[in-house]
Amino acid sequence: MATIVSREIRLASRPKGIPTAANFTLARVELGPLQDQQVLVRNLYMSVDPYMRGRMNEGKSYVPPFELGKPLDGSAIGEVIESRAKGFKPGDAVASGFGWREYFMASLKDLHPVSREIEPLSVYLGALGMTGMTAWAGLNLVEVKASDVIFISGAAGAVGSVAGQLAKLRGCRRVIGSAGSLAKVRFLQEECGFDVAFDYKAGPVLEHLNLEAPEGIDVYFDNVGGETLEAALSALRVHGRIIACGGISGYNEEKPRPGPSNLFNIITKRLTMKGLIVSDSLDRRDAFEKEMGGYLRAGKLKNKETVVEGIDQAVGAFIGLFQGSNVGKMVVKLV
Amino acid sequence: MATIVSREIRLASRPKGIPTAANFTLARVELGPLQDQQVLVRNLYMSVDPYMRGRMNEGKSYVPPFELGKPLDGSAIGEVIESRAKGFKPGDAVASGFGWREYFMASLKDLHPVSREIEPLSVYLGALGMTGMTAWAGLNLVEVKASDVIFISGAAGAVGSVAGQLAKLRGCRRVIGSAGSLAKVRFLQEECGFDVAFDYKAGPVLEHLNLEAPEGIDVYFDNVGGETLEAALSALRVHGRIIACGGISGYNEEKPRPGPSNLFNIITKRLTMKGLIVSDSLDRRDAFEKEMGGYLRAGKLKNKETVVEGIDQAVGAFIGLFQGSNVGKMVVKLV
Repeated sequence: MATIVSREIRLASRPKGIPTAANFTLARVELGPLQDQQVLVRNLYMSVDPYMRGRMNEGKSYVPPFELGKPLDGSAIGEVIESRAKGFKPGDAVASGFGWREYFMASLKDLHPVSREIEPLSVYLGALGMTGMTAWAGLNLVEVKASDVIFISGAAGAVGSVAGQLAKLRGCRRVIGSAGSLAKVRFLQEECGFDVAFDYKAGPVLEHLNLEAPEGIDVYFDNVGGETLEAALSALRVHGRIIACGGISGYNEEKPRPGPSNLFNIITKRLTMKGLIVSDSLDRRDAFEKEMGGYLRAGKLKNKETVVEGIDQAVGAFIGLFQGSNVGKMVVKLV
Repeated sequence: MATIVSREIRLASRPKGIPTAANFTLARVELGPLQDQQVLVRNLYMSVDPYMRGRMNEGKSYVPPFELGKPLDGSAIGEVIESRAKGFKPGDAVASGFGWREYFMASLKDLHPVSREIEPLSVYLGALGMTGMTAWAGLNLVEVKASDVIFISGAAGAVGSVAGQLAKLRGCRRVIGSAGSLAKVRFLQEECGFDVAFDYKAGPVLEHLNLEAPEGIDVYFDNVGGETLEAALSALRVHGRIIACGGISGYNEEKPRPGPSNLFNIITKRLTMKGLIVSDSLDRRDAFEKEMGGYLRAGKLKNKETVVEGIDQAVGAFIGLFQGSNVGKMVVKLV
């Protein structure tokens, strides 16, 4: 086998506030010869996700921080080019955590085979991947049911757009979404089946909620934090539930922001707020893939994507997440 | 029966910040003749509780606000003086919601008979009453178990002191309390069996927690909110639970305070935070009374009280709650 030259994105410096291109470098590396029990994979798609911003800071969180001068990582879908491991052969499609690079070598334990039955394979970064599973695990976490009125923020994002569609499939009484543009609002209402969506930039969120759910909401699926969380705390009904999934409105803050001033509603309304990280649900991956795969094959759920092409566009795609550039899952197509 | 003259405390004006005596009036009322199906009760003890502060503000919460010019209400234990209702006879002891007054007339549905087996009867305002049941319901709410390290704030108060003793009776690995004076710290350690307690005024709460629970806490029983909640969010372990029971540190704020700036820990550590109001547990009152009564009769649990005497001292006792005057349950003895 000829020497493989792979390009990869490295963290050059830790961003302060919103990341810029200067925080990253694109490097070329030569991959050494394939070892026994290893597989050479060429990535077809890689994921950029808001949670990666936290890993660019110093200090421990639920995942270790990215290291300076080292390649970033994250979800990717690739194709086996060469295999010295039993169970994988050239042409097989695999999911891995070796994103932000064009090629890599890994052993079996770090690869998850995926079927080519559903195309494009980038679906394994979206509805059938980590973000789709986050949506699914979130609804399970607080046992979302048909009698619920659910409000989802960041609804046009990878997690939110799937969460809303799943809520509809579960028969939720009313599914309400917030997003950052009229085009996204239209997408949610026309393509994702949300009962209603609104542009959070057009007036206070609480006013929108009072209008769209005058009797309050039962469940809040939080992807953004900040003012929207505060509004939801006011709009929730007695015994309401909050899925605390993300806080993108604060990811680029240089100092921690104060929390909502109406947190006391948790007591007065006996709310339940539960934090969600998808890795806690990995042992239910089969159940997830079965359910979600069924919806996708039956055409009952849409895997919306925003696709950019080429590893040299990956940093721009990542930064775009914080500027609202994506509708659905932001995906970088590498081949 | 002669005319009964009762004294009662009325809300004269809505407090701004910390209540003062000027916000209340002591009025004399003549009680009309006892109606059929009614019972005349003389209160022996009445309760003052921090949650009452919220009811002195305008605006709806989980309980309606007190009305200006009308008597306050709250838990009380009294003795039947005269009965025109089947099932009650003079001398019977009853719990009711007709506190802040010396006598009252009520029908059966508003009275709860209590046994004289455990004395003094003020225990039905404390360990066997609403505050004890709050402690019990809180531990049940997040299923506190023997492997847990639990931290309780406001630990020397009516709810906290019972919660800590119950946690010890459940065999919790470590029970940590915070309170506002060295005398209270000693009380918690020497009389309530807390493994350790600290004075929250002596150094940052998080430093105390890091010292007393270097591997973190599993459960936080929050009675105070504010800085202590923020510290607990930092000290909680992955999958930790918060019982959101009270926020006395903020009850006298004129404007809502911002919430903790580290609320994002709910996501990164997949915490569960649940709001608690004891009235949701009233259908389990029998189970509570059986368990708590058993502990009290067996001498396994202490019902600590701070007692003041006379209805003219009730307002001072109430204001004292916010000055840390009470150890255990603050009780006003009326007879």
